[in-house]
Amino acid sequence: MARHAIGLDIGGTKVAGAVVAEDGTVVDELTEPTPATSDAPTMSRLLLGMIDTLRRKNPGVVAVGVGAAGTVAWPSGQILWAPNNAYRDWAVRAEIEEATGLPAVVDNDANVAGLAEARLGDTLHKEMVLVTVGTGVGSGIVLGGRIYRGPHGLGAELGHIIVDPNGPLCGCGNRGCLESLASGTALTRTGREAAAANPDGLIARLAREKNVEVTGQIVTEAALQGDPTARRLFQTLARWLGIGIASVTTIFELDAVVIGGGVVDTGELLLAPLREAAAEFAYAKSVRPLVPVLPSTFGSAAGKIGAALLALDHADDRSTR
Amino acid sequence: MARHAIGLDIGGTKVAGAVVAEDGTVVDELTEPTPATSDAPTMSRLLLGMIDTLRRKNPGVVAVGVGAAGTVAWPSGQILWAPNNAYRDWAVRAEIEEATGLPAVVDNDANVAGLAEARLGDTLHKEMVLVTVGTGVGSGIVLGGRIYRGPHGLGAELGHIIVDPNGPLCGCGNRGCLESLASGTALTRTGREAAAANPDGLIARLAREKNVEVTGQIVTEAALQGDPTARRLFQTLARWLGIGIASVTTIFELDAVVIGGGVVDTGELLLAPLREAAAEFAYAKSVRPLVPVLPSTFGSAAGKIGAALLALDHADDRSTR
Repeated sequence: MARHAIGLDIGGTKVAGAVVAEDGTVVDELTEPTPATSDAPTMSRLLLGMIDTLRRKNPGVVAVGVGAAGTVAWPSGQILWAPNNAYRDWAVRAEIEEATGLPAVVDNDANVAGLAEARLGDTLHKEMVLVTVGTGVGSGIVLGGRIYRGPHGLGAELGHIIVDPNGPLCGCGNRGCLESLASGTALTRTGREAAAANPDGLIARLAREKNVEVTGQIVTEAALQGDPTARRLFQTLARWLGIGIASVTTIFELDAVVIGGGVVDTGELLLAPLREAAAEFAYAKSVRPLVPVLPSTFGSAAGKIGAALLALDHADDRSTR
Repeated sequence: MARHAIGLDIGGTKVAGAVVAEDGTVVDELTEPTPATSDAPTMSRLLLGMIDTLRRKNPGVVAVGVGAAGTVAWPSGQILWAPNNAYRDWAVRAEIEEATGLPAVVDNDANVAGLAEARLGDTLHKEMVLVTVGTGVGSGIVLGGRIYRGPHGLGAELGHIIVDPNGPLCGCGNRGCLESLASGTALTRTGREAAAANPDGLIARLAREKNVEVTGQIVTEAALQGDPTARRLFQTLARWLGIGIASVTTIFELDAVVIGGGVVDTGELLLAPLREAAAEFAYAKSVRPLVPVLPSTFGSAAGKIGAALLALDHADDRSTR
């Protein structure tokens, strides 16, 4: 019988949970909103409650995997810090193991999503980087079929490579990180500038109609409706992303770069200018094959699936405890 | 008895050869200038002659390793392209194995230098990046004690990550590569601009005294003599290098970054502003330890030593042939 694990993906707005088989099949699902007070005790209660609910319906699960936004120490499973949640120094893994008696793993959300895409995506990729573009820019690096984390599990933060040292201030405190130029947050910033400069433009009008401030989502909607200003902002974001991805392929050479996160739902609007910039800045084009840039297979489900896969990988592996 | 291998390091100006023991001890050496006509047949004759000479004096050598500037396919040992030498599509490994009957390996010069620094440098580093700053910017990435090359051996080109997409044209054809801003070639460019702007400055005067054009070396000499303009150019180079290295540590997390190549001979003149910029642009400083930036242990000998070490690693390994 196929083994199953619970996979949980903690994001800024929701916690997605699933019971997943070794082949990636999702046999059960459960999603809860992230509480406004996202401190460690509140989040622990939520997580343990979700595990309990999923386990009662699926008593055979053998392990629990968690993917979380933020800086996660590996293999200890301590979440040190997260840009968009209140939890700090949260010993998630130890708490889950103690409360459930099941082996658990905790890793960065993009790392586990990368594992799902590399192992079970439309094409098998041994060397692959997943870049997720949402509120921020996250990444999972899979080398030789395994997640690369760095000596303490704190690496693989492609959103914070510097692509323009004189660029805008990033949420992390540095200037010109890829995330400061190529995330939903960047689109919110440039969209607000555009709306202020042209209050009759579609971006400003859409926000007024909905009675909200301009966000990356409003800009995306305007771009999908063909607004030239929104399209230009979108193309600028995609160009920065392509430049960052060119550097990533120069460093790693890769079988593929996979793009995930909410912004990729716009399809070719993002991918076409992204691929163009990645090709323009690719190194030694005459001798190095251009690395394909593909949309993700699992979309927003990649995190919970990958978390469960990682849990199954390590369920019998005492070296990670 | 310790096994020995021949290590050869092919550079733009010289080919350095050595007979090296497993512990890194150099027991014999031989250096030849790179011929002006550095095409494949000329270079093959030179290499085979050097191997022959070293082998006659050291008949016990069990393998040959070659490090070469340029894009080298692994494990086939085909040198596809080099920015500063004329050879193209040169099947070095096959030629050496056929002519000598010894097992051979051929890899990028900074890759093998990185192996020597990681394994036998002053401190043992399991996860380390070597950045070599000379005419260009090269790099060797060592992860888990092994050279990371990418799926076809064409990765690890940190000199060509994009640090300023509107920056100067690089020798590779792209704009704003780290190499275009932080190499000896970059120093030549900025030094010539400074000399043209101020013909009475020390940079211009040193070049006139020696009856040569301004080069990176002239700028370095002026900086070591305390010339404020030359020091500023040097600091700018070091700052770009630090920015690139910050991105590298954001991606890999590392035990250390080691700086090699001719420019590091200037010591703290380069390293102090480099470390400052690397710290300024480091990601998540509150939770991630700052990665130490160290000068290389072996200097220009790292290439030939690392080439021999790699040859000994693979002397009995049929999987690489």
